[in-house]
Amino acid sequence: MKSYLTAFSFVLLGASAAAAAMDEPIQPIKPVQNINLGQVELGKKLYFDPRLSKSGFISCNSCHNLSMGGTDNLKTSIGHNWQQGPINAPTVLNASLNMAQFWDGRAADLKAQAGGPIANPGEMAFSHTLAIDVLASIPAYVMEFKQVFGTDKITIDQVTQAIAEFEKTLVTPNARFDQWLLGDKEALTKEELAGYRLFKESGCSACHNGEAVGGNSFQKMGVVASYKTTSSAEGLSGVTGKNADRFKFKVPTLRNVEMTYPYFHDGEAATLTEAVDIMGRLQLGRKFSSTENNQIVAFLKTLTGDQPAFLMPVLPPSTEKTPAPKPFE
Amino acid sequence: MKSYLTAFSFVLLGASAAAAAMDEPIQPIKPVQNINLGQVELGKKLYFDPRLSKSGFISCNSCHNLSMGGTDNLKTSIGHNWQQGPINAPTVLNASLNMAQFWDGRAADLKAQAGGPIANPGEMAFSHTLAIDVLASIPAYVMEFKQVFGTDKITIDQVTQAIAEFEKTLVTPNARFDQWLLGDKEALTKEELAGYRLFKESGCSACHNGEAVGGNSFQKMGVVASYKTTSSAEGLSGVTGKNADRFKFKVPTLRNVEMTYPYFHDGEAATLTEAVDIMGRLQLGRKFSSTENNQIVAFLKTLTGDQPAFLMPVLPPSTEKTPAPKPFE
Repeated sequence: MKSYLTAFSFVLLGASAAAAAMDEPIQPIKPVQNINLGQVELGKKLYFDPRLSKSGFISCNSCHNLSMGGTDNLKTSIGHNWQQGPINAPTVLNASLNMAQFWDGRAADLKAQAGGPIANPGEMAFSHTLAIDVLASIPAYVMEFKQVFGTDKITIDQVTQAIAEFEKTLVTPNARFDQWLLGDKEALTKEELAGYRLFKESGCSACHNGEAVGGNSFQKMGVVASYKTTSSAEGLSGVTGKNADRFKFKVPTLRNVEMTYPYFHDGEAATLTEAVDIMGRLQLGRKFSSTENNQIVAFLKTLTGDQPAFLMPVLPPSTEKTPAPKPFE
Repeated sequence: MKSYLTAFSFVLLGASAAAAAMDEPIQPIKPVQNINLGQVELGKKLYFDPRLSKSGFISCNSCHNLSMGGTDNLKTSIGHNWQQGPINAPTVLNASLNMAQFWDGRAADLKAQAGGPIANPGEMAFSHTLAIDVLASIPAYVMEFKQVFGTDKITIDQVTQAIAEFEKTLVTPNARFDQWLLGDKEALTKEELAGYRLFKESGCSACHNGEAVGGNSFQKMGVVASYKTTSSAEGLSGVTGKNADRFKFKVPTLRNVEMTYPYFHDGEAATLTEAVDIMGRLQLGRKFSSTENNQIVAFLKTLTGDQPAFLMPVLPPSTEKTPAPKPFE
């Protein structure tokens, strides 16, 4: 009888914990589903292959480094010939949960995004045609594309599809905050919980919510007071053409935010303390005290999840037919 | 009785295969021994950490990319601010088997080598002091150094020791050629064996021998005829000060040579075909026929071994105390 009651209590506890999690503005990261493993393995190679750039030196992983929270931890990125990029590289981690890609949302999904940097003269400075020429000159790639896509001819559509499929696997479940959401009430400290309450009560969670704690709306940078920056990025208006969309940017995910410094579209906030302070003043009209700021930062650090774990890919070598990279032209 | 005889034959076969391998100028790669695993795991992180560079963008792996045969597959490397390096980046694979490091042998071992690029203004453009400042600002690194080295204070000596220990693990055993050396007579094709015979008989193995198929002597580039190049590198003479050592370079390993293109200290030979042709004419005074060249290239491709397999490391994040990288200064 006792063990029956215990089991029954567990069921009740589980149910109430699940109900509690559903009431929260943040949801735990769900396991990835419907993954095409062949595309993932091919996409992982492509993600790490600098031969998709003119120089042969820059890969997706150069600016979305999977050792560093899926970012480069620079204010703005370094592109071909050491060009300074115009905007902070957003994390690729959990990017599949975003409603759209890039800060201004100009790409509908990961697949649409993946082709952008390859052909951007300030980033990888290549072209889709030249990238395909390189891949098609490497028999091991030709075979793998054929195995995965069933055709003899490699296309940029296949390349971006495979990269996007790999990126879909880059979710970070099992953060301490998710453990708390899923019912482990010991997973967070009092300070972290105080920070989370403040995060909700002061209005942060109005925009930073859902599974990714962001990524699901565009919001103006500078609501209560205007944001001062030397960055020329104007955000969503560049996509919609509407003046009302000037300085609207996609709300970034706060998952793994401890690892994705520096912050904001211009990368001007070096630390979480600074970012929380600016967000409070400009978006919420609230000056967080030092104690409050510390509490929110403590909560934010509970959003660091399990980082993607995979074997470093080995790339098939170029052949005598492979066009040589042109790093210094 | 029959099974006894069979077992006995295997023993004889094994013994004669081992004897045969010892007669060959090339020996199989031996398993790594006496490895300090704590240092390896720490060194792996440091090897992948671009915060050891001024820009925060360049790590050891940028130019000695473990996805690409431990090289960057460029003629000469790209350094800080896209500076063009003076020499071809040698592979880090099996570098522990070299008698000395760098093309001119100016570093006695991997540990002495590892500090070079960090402080080289044309490469990572940092300083040892600044690199230590960065690491010491990151509590997770401080703890890991303490665990591994038993002291509170991080030193450059520990940094290079850990990187070198990781690099000692980057050997590539089990090449098809090694399988052949170890007694599997089916491991090579007739063409590959013909190439190996030619490699020995024509004199290639006079310099390219031992476990690494090179790496154990300095030789003049251009013995029979002088080598024409725009490279200003003069090799060993820069270390010894002796005129007789001009244009003497460390004989590179031919392990994984299929992956370590382009070839020579100046990276001017784009393909194995070209490299074999030039070596034949300049070092041996012999013009290989097209058939001979193909045979030698076929043999060289049997030297590709098992590439290092490891989980991509996750780097501990910077803190509010970590000095920011300076990519554009």
